[in-house]
Amino acid sequence: MLDINTPAETLTIDDMRAAHERIKPYINRTPVLRSQYLDDLTGAQLFFKCENFQEAGAFKVRGACNAVFGLSDEAAEKGVCTHSSGNHALSLSYAAGRRGIPCNVVMPRTAPQAKKDAVRRYGGTITECEPSTTSREAVFAEVQARTGGEFVHPYNDPRVIAGQATCSAELLEQTGGLDAVVAPIGGGGMISGTCLTLSNLASDTAIYAAEPEQADDAYRSFKAGHIIADDAPDTIADGLKVPLKENTWHFVSRYVTDIQTASEQEIIDAMKITWKYLRIVMEPSCAVPLAVILKNPDAYRGKRVGVVITGGNVDLDKLPWIKG
Amino acid sequence: MLDINTPAETLTIDDMRAAHERIKPYINRTPVLRSQYLDDLTGAQLFFKCENFQEAGAFKVRGACNAVFGLSDEAAEKGVCTHSSGNHALSLSYAAGRRGIPCNVVMPRTAPQAKKDAVRRYGGTITECEPSTTSREAVFAEVQARTGGEFVHPYNDPRVIAGQATCSAELLEQTGGLDAVVAPIGGGGMISGTCLTLSNLASDTAIYAAEPEQADDAYRSFKAGHIIADDAPDTIADGLKVPLKENTWHFVSRYVTDIQTASEQEIIDAMKITWKYLRIVMEPSCAVPLAVILKNPDAYRGKRVGVVITGGNVDLDKLPWIKG
Repeated sequence: MLDINTPAETLTIDDMRAAHERIKPYINRTPVLRSQYLDDLTGAQLFFKCENFQEAGAFKVRGACNAVFGLSDEAAEKGVCTHSSGNHALSLSYAAGRRGIPCNVVMPRTAPQAKKDAVRRYGGTITECEPSTTSREAVFAEVQARTGGEFVHPYNDPRVIAGQATCSAELLEQTGGLDAVVAPIGGGGMISGTCLTLSNLASDTAIYAAEPEQADDAYRSFKAGHIIADDAPDTIADGLKVPLKENTWHFVSRYVTDIQTASEQEIIDAMKITWKYLRIVMEPSCAVPLAVILKNPDAYRGKRVGVVITGGNVDLDKLPWIKG
Repeated sequence: MLDINTPAETLTIDDMRAAHERIKPYINRTPVLRSQYLDDLTGAQLFFKCENFQEAGAFKVRGACNAVFGLSDEAAEKGVCTHSSGNHALSLSYAAGRRGIPCNVVMPRTAPQAKKDAVRRYGGTITECEPSTTSREAVFAEVQARTGGEFVHPYNDPRVIAGQATCSAELLEQTGGLDAVVAPIGGGGMISGTCLTLSNLASDTAIYAAEPEQADDAYRSFKAGHIIADDAPDTIADGLKVPLKENTWHFVSRYVTDIQTASEQEIIDAMKITWKYLRIVMEPSCAVPLAVILKNPDAYRGKRVGVVITGGNVDLDKLPWIKG
């Protein structure tokens, strides 16, 4: 059985398959949507895998469920814990709730109230920290020591990567094959899972990672050949601010075809276009792939391209194209 | 072959089946989405049929495609025409574009620019009229005489009703059966199609129509036993302002279980909840069903309920819960 210390390089496609069997009762097989308008606009055939339609609103339920339901009964008794200001906190709370075990989440006190409410709705317990790495690490160490819960990292965790890998397995089945897949990159969990699946099942499919210019640490890492972490990147694509770690760097450095970046305005424009023509509610992070496709048409024209819509937990009272 | 003068009472389930075969190449088999949160909130099991994911953004492509692709080559040559300020105009333009025939649409000059742009994008030709019945009828008579195009009514047209009927046929297949279906009612095209299909294929399934209080002509017609038309109803659910006509009254008066109404605020609240938890972009009209389910919990608790999300063509710059 995988644990948080399993080396990334030992992950196999069978780990993805075992994850898929394990999590199927708890996740949605999300639909793949198409839009003739967006195809015409990009010159590509786009297949949007809508992970915003997961119950907790993000692909992260896949990794969270794989970690939670892979625990032995003994380990599960003490529950799970993590630190996250976003979708991983919701997703782990959802997964723990489905298994009926405790979930402790350390969140910055500045995290959006809507996200805190959702964690509590799923039965998670929040311990607040200051919005700094020092405070987060100190508070998290205390919570973990006190509860004895199993730490499930938001992305630098082989169980989580194997779970995220199930998304592109479904996408391949639903489309019958693709020339390329584009997914956003933050810490690299989704991209690493995509690499695990595609490098084994569809090695001709190109893998593009899409990143905000204003949080382009993965792009610079990829060019430099080693991890570069930024201190405090600022972008509207708030799910993509975190840096790569060793487990995700393993996949990114070996299997990603290229990393492309987009400006804040390009992200907002792509977000609004997707809401309008695909008619889905999605986070700014999910708009980065369409933004880079529109910006690099030669890389995608005439191709069958999968696009991962990673999540849909948005503050509907504050949309970036409406001046408040 | 059906035409606009075919009496509604002669429509059979085979007309629905023929429509489905005819339109399948041109429509999306839209997904059915679920939400544990909304199930918990209502006490029902809700199955949302997402017609907002049709290419033209509404179920109305079903009826429009059935009418357009049912025409003989000779009749098709002169194209089609209609009057509509909304989704029927887009949908007929889309259908005509797919067949490669002309489409002439009479639209009030006050119709939203976005809808006019979409009609033109699909190849439709717009003739503007004043926003009054007199002007619309005069301008439409002139356009029809000049072009000789086949008139496809937005809803009082057996070809259109047979096309809309395909939606609940898919919903039944996708869910394996339902205790009730709730759809919004304006002119009654969607509800009539729902009645045609369910009365034949699932006669135990209750059919509820959901209507804005501020445009409750169908509700009052249903109670009075004859068609009552309002002059100028005003509601945020702008797709539901039109009155019943004889072909839709045939179905509404015979097969609808009940008509329930909701206030403007209840519609807006249900709309925002659906955007937030189902994470789809949909029109205010589509929120009326959830609003009446929340308002009449006893009618739905413990039941398997289909909800038709009729369309997703919204002005994203003006959302009703954000003060501009």
